[in-house]
Amino acid sequence: MKIDFLTLFPEMFEGVLGSSILKKAQEKNAVEFNVTNFREFSSNKHQTVDDYPYGGGAGMVLTPQPIFDAVGKLKETSKAAPRIILVCPQGERFNQRKAEELAGIDHLIFICGHYEGYDERIREHLVTDEISIGDFVLTGGELPSMVIADSVVRLLPGVLGNVDSPLQDSYSSGFLEHPHYTRPSDYNGMKVPDVLLSGNHQLIEEWRLKESLKRTWQRRPDLLEARELSEDQKKWLEQLKKEDE
Amino acid sequence: MKIDFLTLFPEMFEGVLGSSILKKAQEKNAVEFNVTNFREFSSNKHQTVDDYPYGGGAGMVLTPQPIFDAVGKLKETSKAAPRIILVCPQGERFNQRKAEELAGIDHLIFICGHYEGYDERIREHLVTDEISIGDFVLTGGELPSMVIADSVVRLLPGVLGNVDSPLQDSYSSGFLEHPHYTRPSDYNGMKVPDVLLSGNHQLIEEWRLKESLKRTWQRRPDLLEARELSEDQKKWLEQLKKEDE
Repeated sequence: MKIDFLTLFPEMFEGVLGSSILKKAQEKNAVEFNVTNFREFSSNKHQTVDDYPYGGGAGMVLTPQPIFDAVGKLKETSKAAPRIILVCPQGERFNQRKAEELAGIDHLIFICGHYEGYDERIREHLVTDEISIGDFVLTGGELPSMVIADSVVRLLPGVLGNVDSPLQDSYSSGFLEHPHYTRPSDYNGMKVPDVLLSGNHQLIEEWRLKESLKRTWQRRPDLLEARELSEDQKKWLEQLKKEDE
Repeated sequence: MKIDFLTLFPEMFEGVLGSSILKKAQEKNAVEFNVTNFREFSSNKHQTVDDYPYGGGAGMVLTPQPIFDAVGKLKETSKAAPRIILVCPQGERFNQRKAEELAGIDHLIFICGHYEGYDERIREHLVTDEISIGDFVLTGGELPSMVIADSVVRLLPGVLGNVDSPLQDSYSSGFLEHPHYTRPSDYNGMKVPDVLLSGNHQLIEEWRLKESLKRTWQRRPDLLEARELSEDQKKWLEQLKKEDE
């Protein structure tokens, strides 16, 4: 997979792309990252990339030319049609299903604006996916683009070794994770539940399934509505509801 | 405001905290960032910070000691009770309201785990806020912590100058933004709507309000349900629904 980031702040990406799993993924040739300052594509002699909005108002708007030209250049290297992604509050909500979809694409191009607005023609005629990571305002598209890239790259074959593999992926099981404990069994009077020290694997497994269900019910009941529950799970859920009354 | 990040990958923060608005916010003394590798707090001679989970299973779990000790040390510098934030998929969903709440706090401490799980005692006895930025899995807590910090810091007084101010904050108005356009009025045959070139400010304002309503209705009807609409807005919405039939 190839991932391009178009930005006015290329230095924002260095630490994140050069550390940990994203670094390893590049070393394993699972992904190639490329960060481009689209200011370099401005045909304007002052290399400006934004201008005042038509119709008036505060703030600046990114002009179409540098972004269309930069994307055009990057597309030349695509084997198949790339996905051109704009991260913005108006987009489709990002989730694990979308991460899995993007993990199957050969080339992703992220357009990262920074406090300016985008000329609507970029949105209408260039972008293939508008994605939002949530209902909050950020100073730019760089961080959410890195978030999306991180969640996609970790799904690529060979990227997560056994050492790095999460204990359990919250969204693949459909339930929130059960609690985890490690040594010491007593930390300043805070103790690990006895069952986890019992060595009885059947009891431990049941405890984990129940805790996972309990946490999901307490914190994300919407996830339960979307799922078919087993007979055991239905029984435990009834029990939880009774205890809560 | 002081913001501490506890992480095993301090280098991930350099580019983001050293660029753009977050950099300016530090220069203006609106915020002080501090990144600490909590491995330095491990009392273990090998400086390990994780261990196998009690009860068995794949993956590793962060032990309580280094994190409790690191937070304890950082709290010594707090003027008032700090918020100790764990970013995890099980947490409360982050949104603009939560960003505004955190912007009023003097000291935030983010605990960033990285593919390991957390010992439950950290969650239960140390953390004040568990926050999730969405239903997707990431390789660590660093990126979502930076996302939250970014959305909080831009709200601090004096951080956003006029130049940087967004055209319109999507979530403060309760509607999605209307489209923006800038020069040229014709870019390779893609044209700016005539009304924006008309110079008639009343028509432009009405067009923007209608487009904002239209986009919200098309993409985020849930935002409309949560709001009281004006008589004009109700009329336009009826019109939109008719056109759509």
